[in-house]
Amino acid sequence: TAGVAAAGARQPPNILLLLMDDMGWGDLGVYGEPSRETPNLDRMAAEGMLFPNFYSANPLCSPSRAALLTGRLPIRNGFYTTNAHARNAYTPQEVVGGIPDSEFLLPELLREAGYTSKIVGKWHLGHRPQFHPLKHGFDEWFGSPNCHFGPFDNRAKPNIPVYRDWEMVGRFYEEFPINLKTGEANLTQIYLQEALDFIRRQQARQRPFFLYWAIDATHAPVYASRPFLGTSQRGRYGDAVREVDDSVGRILRLLRDLSLAENTFVFFTSDNGAALVSAPEQGGCWSLSSWLPSEWAQTTHTSESTVWPPAEQKGLPWSGSLQAGGSNGPFLCGKQTTFEGGMRVPAIAWWPGHVPAGQVSHQLGSIMDLFSTSLSLAGLKVPHDRTVDGLNLLPAILQGQLVDRPIFYYRGNTLMALTLGLYKAHFWTWTNSWEEFKQGIDFCPGQNVSGVTTHTQEEHTKLPLIFHLGRDPGERYPLSFGSAEYQDVLGRITPAVQQHQEALIPGQPQLNVCNQAVMNWAPPGCEKLGKCLRPPESVPEKCSWPH
Amino acid sequence: TAGVAAAGARQPPNILLLLMDDMGWGDLGVYGEPSRETPNLDRMAAEGMLFPNFYSANPLCSPSRAALLTGRLPIRNGFYTTNAHARNAYTPQEVVGGIPDSEFLLPELLREAGYTSKIVGKWHLGHRPQFHPLKHGFDEWFGSPNCHFGPFDNRAKPNIPVYRDWEMVGRFYEEFPINLKTGEANLTQIYLQEALDFIRRQQARQRPFFLYWAIDATHAPVYASRPFLGTSQRGRYGDAVREVDDSVGRILRLLRDLSLAENTFVFFTSDNGAALVSAPEQGGCWSLSSWLPSEWAQTTHTSESTVWPPAEQKGLPWSGSLQAGGSNGPFLCGKQTTFEGGMRVPAIAWWPGHVPAGQVSHQLGSIMDLFSTSLSLAGLKVPHDRTVDGLNLLPAILQGQLVDRPIFYYRGNTLMALTLGLYKAHFWTWTNSWEEFKQGIDFCPGQNVSGVTTHTQEEHTKLPLIFHLGRDPGERYPLSFGSAEYQDVLGRITPAVQQHQEALIPGQPQLNVCNQAVMNWAPPGCEKLGKCLRPPESVPEKCSWPH
Ligand SMILES: [Ca+2]
Ligand SMILES: [Ca+2]
Repeated sequence: TAGVAAAGARQPPNILLLLMDDMGWGDLGVYGEPSRETPNLDRMAAEGMLFPNFYSANPLCSPSRAALLTGRLPIRNGFYTTNAHARNAYTPQEVVGGIPDSEFLLPELLREAGYTSKIVGKWHLGHRPQFHPLKHGFDEWFGSPNCHFGPFDNRAKPNIPVYRDWEMVGRFYEEFPINLKTGEANLTQIYLQEALDFIRRQQARQRPFFLYWAIDATHAPVYASRPFLGTSQRGRYGDAVREVDDSVGRILRLLRDLSLAENTFVFFTSDNGAALVSAPEQGGCWSLSSWLPSEWAQTTHTSESTVWPPAEQKGLPWSGSLQAGGSNGPFLCGKQTTFEGGMRVPAIAWWPGHVPAGQVSHQLGSIMDLFSTSLSLAGLKVPHDRTVDGLNLLPAILQGQLVDRPIFYYRGNTLMALTLGLYKAHFWTWTNSWEEFKQGIDFCPGQNVSGVTTHTQEEHTKLPLIFHLGRDPGERYPLSFGSAEYQDVLGRITPAVQQHQEALIPGQPQLNVCNQAVMNWAPPGCEKLGKCLRPPESVPEKCSWPH
Repeated sequence: TAGVAAAGARQPPNILLLLMDDMGWGDLGVYGEPSRETPNLDRMAAEGMLFPNFYSANPLCSPSRAALLTGRLPIRNGFYTTNAHARNAYTPQEVVGGIPDSEFLLPELLREAGYTSKIVGKWHLGHRPQFHPLKHGFDEWFGSPNCHFGPFDNRAKPNIPVYRDWEMVGRFYEEFPINLKTGEANLTQIYLQEALDFIRRQQARQRPFFLYWAIDATHAPVYASRPFLGTSQRGRYGDAVREVDDSVGRILRLLRDLSLAENTFVFFTSDNGAALVSAPEQGGCWSLSSWLPSEWAQTTHTSESTVWPPAEQKGLPWSGSLQAGGSNGPFLCGKQTTFEGGMRVPAIAWWPGHVPAGQVSHQLGSIMDLFSTSLSLAGLKVPHDRTVDGLNLLPAILQGQLVDRPIFYYRGNTLMALTLGLYKAHFWTWTNSWEEFKQGIDFCPGQNVSGVTTHTQEEHTKLPLIFHLGRDPGERYPLSFGSAEYQDVLGRITPAVQQHQEALIPGQPQLNVCNQAVMNWAPPGCEKLGKCLRPPESVPEKCSWPH
């Protein structure tokens, strides 16, 4: 088993991706969070390279993660819906689809270079047996296939299982409790131990490893373990961030202690921007369980978590004492939107002795670049039989090079916007429907920009709204249509869009069909635990994606 | 003259205050500005101590500066108006008042400890002869008494003079040009040379110095010198920031080169938050002079610069191609308001060998603290015959101590808000009038928070709106009136307000009376230059402060 580490052979570096869930650009001290509660991440940035212009591939979890692991836009790898125009979709447990077998995932490819791969945390690329991460290149898994929503009643809807490798070892809210009232859960500590243990084992085996640490403490319902609860100035969300920060510090310290730091490429980022209203305040007057609407647990509810909490208790500013969740810094709106707050995410590269300390790269980066960069680190080439959107970031990281490349912002199969250099063009604007907005569901709380954060789908494909993200990072002041600057930018954006759209071969959409029968009723291993549930009759239906 | 530096005597440290004009909390890389164009200031923070919770004493220039130099709130030192309720006022050249003789200014007091003091840049504490900085403790001055608005026609209104010490040496837009079309002015370079020259001279004299470097490149109309124009991602405002950053780097480098760094306490901050719309875009389609309304130059116009540009060309988002100016990071609104964006400012302490490197202090700090801290550094005591609001920050800076103290937010003589610990209570909310707002004057562009950013003066003195600034730095979600948390906070805030108000002795308001005859028609030295202008008849009138 130690073949690739044979004496004299140069072993490729280990790869450690620290992927946060719904953590915003502005959530780290080094990105300007006023409370300055992320000393370990700030130190990671001081010892490494900071990317202020780094993007997720989608404003939602599942498509962004599928893009990370395939290096391809969701429109190519199938992680989108065509059920309605410009809709965000993901993989709640009633979704039938998942990552197609035809996609090459990063761990599958890294295996060719001798890597052992582990995923810790949220998979979210499909929960049915054919989508299992160990069928797609990972050697180990500890975590869950879906978000930690719940608790469910195990009759209308099962609680989400937690897997160790091939089999479930329990369910959230059962063997893996999350106390919605107090916010207490020790999941981050478990995920931390899984990471530390894996690193130690791989070091002993002298094998290169790929560790994908995809934890979810900052995704609603936000949680932290007891030593961190109540310690943040920022409320429960901040408690979760502090625990994450502490955990990252421990992981990096272990790498140093094991003398692995100079042979481990570490990258920290998030799967999408912060959900701007994501959690009720710590010690507030409602318990989460008391206001969880009964339909939440009973129906095929395919709304994502920023609808948290429900509208009737969100009426601002006097009907309740809500707090904000994460922060997107100076950027507009949050998760669910294709404004900067939904897609621009924190990003830090760390590799002592290789990545120069204290640097800032202005490269436009994408979470998909982690695919191509990892392959490059492993000495592998990206697949040549398909379009790969990811860029190899090593020239940017190691030599300070800058490559001009576009960033695409999609909702469903609709290209909503594109960033090229410092300019961003919106072809469609939409936050959510008036109907949802009037119910209190607001993805841009306190940030209405007239004609920009619209509640009807506004088409601008002929004459896009163009913003200069350097002068106007908050996307508040579109360039004047009549200006020379507008014409110049339009002249460069138009061919980039045409080239993209002409070459585009959309993948088969995976997120169109839902079926209560495919939920996590009887995951592998349930028999041993006596935790198998009986599925209802199979009734495939179109998933409803409201925004 | 070298008395205090006699052999064996321990000389107190030099004091260097770098005061920016209208620079926002979010304008520095270290505070999260995405373009990361302030490497020198970021390094200053890495070598020193960062204050995320530091406040100006007023959301406008003059009162904030008067507070800095007296250590006292504007309501005490007279830098406010009572002409209407809750109005912001400052010192345009038609204002009759200025700093009262009864106030002790920092340089006057430092003189007792042997300091030589110089002000470089904007004074703004009154332009009539009795208010001259050299009558209030400064030994040298290079700069202007008022903002660099203009050009004026020298008939209805004179251009602002530039002084060297006692006499004028020219006027803005005449001997000291500012090209409003291109944004070019070499004023920051002149101010930089004044600083470097003063530091060198004082080092040669072996005398402790106090240098108050109060530059104004980031105040509208924003300017930069040719080498910096067009170099920022952020437009002209960013060009100005880059030149400021470069200049700070040069000043700190000189201190190191002269081996003065370990004997010079340097503090960087700003006089108020960023004016959220402060300058038309670089290369935009209007020249400033073309849209300067004629009344601007012709009347006693006492509006501050955030009304820049005039309403008719501000209509967003389609009538023009405006850019934002500075950034207040995650905070609400900007200059002119008592929301966090108007009053929370960047702050860095730097004193190699004394201030520990790379630290963050969560002390609630105020610009008035620079008065008390400077006196402490000089071995002097604060005046005991009056209330001093400034706190000595040395225990916070050198020993990491934290002192619980309130921050007061005033407009005129109205206490608008108070921050205590992590809680902020608003007793009045107001941005500006509906009348102004409908004309396009918006101090919170794109940031409307219903019931919070109001356009009528809303009284909440009985039941203040309370925000938790840790969970909700953007002041978007007031605590529920019925919550235990609200009651607890109110119980702590109420006595703090009562104590403040019972002990308060307001100073004579200085900003009530305007008179065209007091403008800078014939400043001392004008005869030599042949630049004396004839004042109009003296007509004292109430100043009009619209917001
Ligand atoms: Ca997510
Ligand atoms: Ca100012």
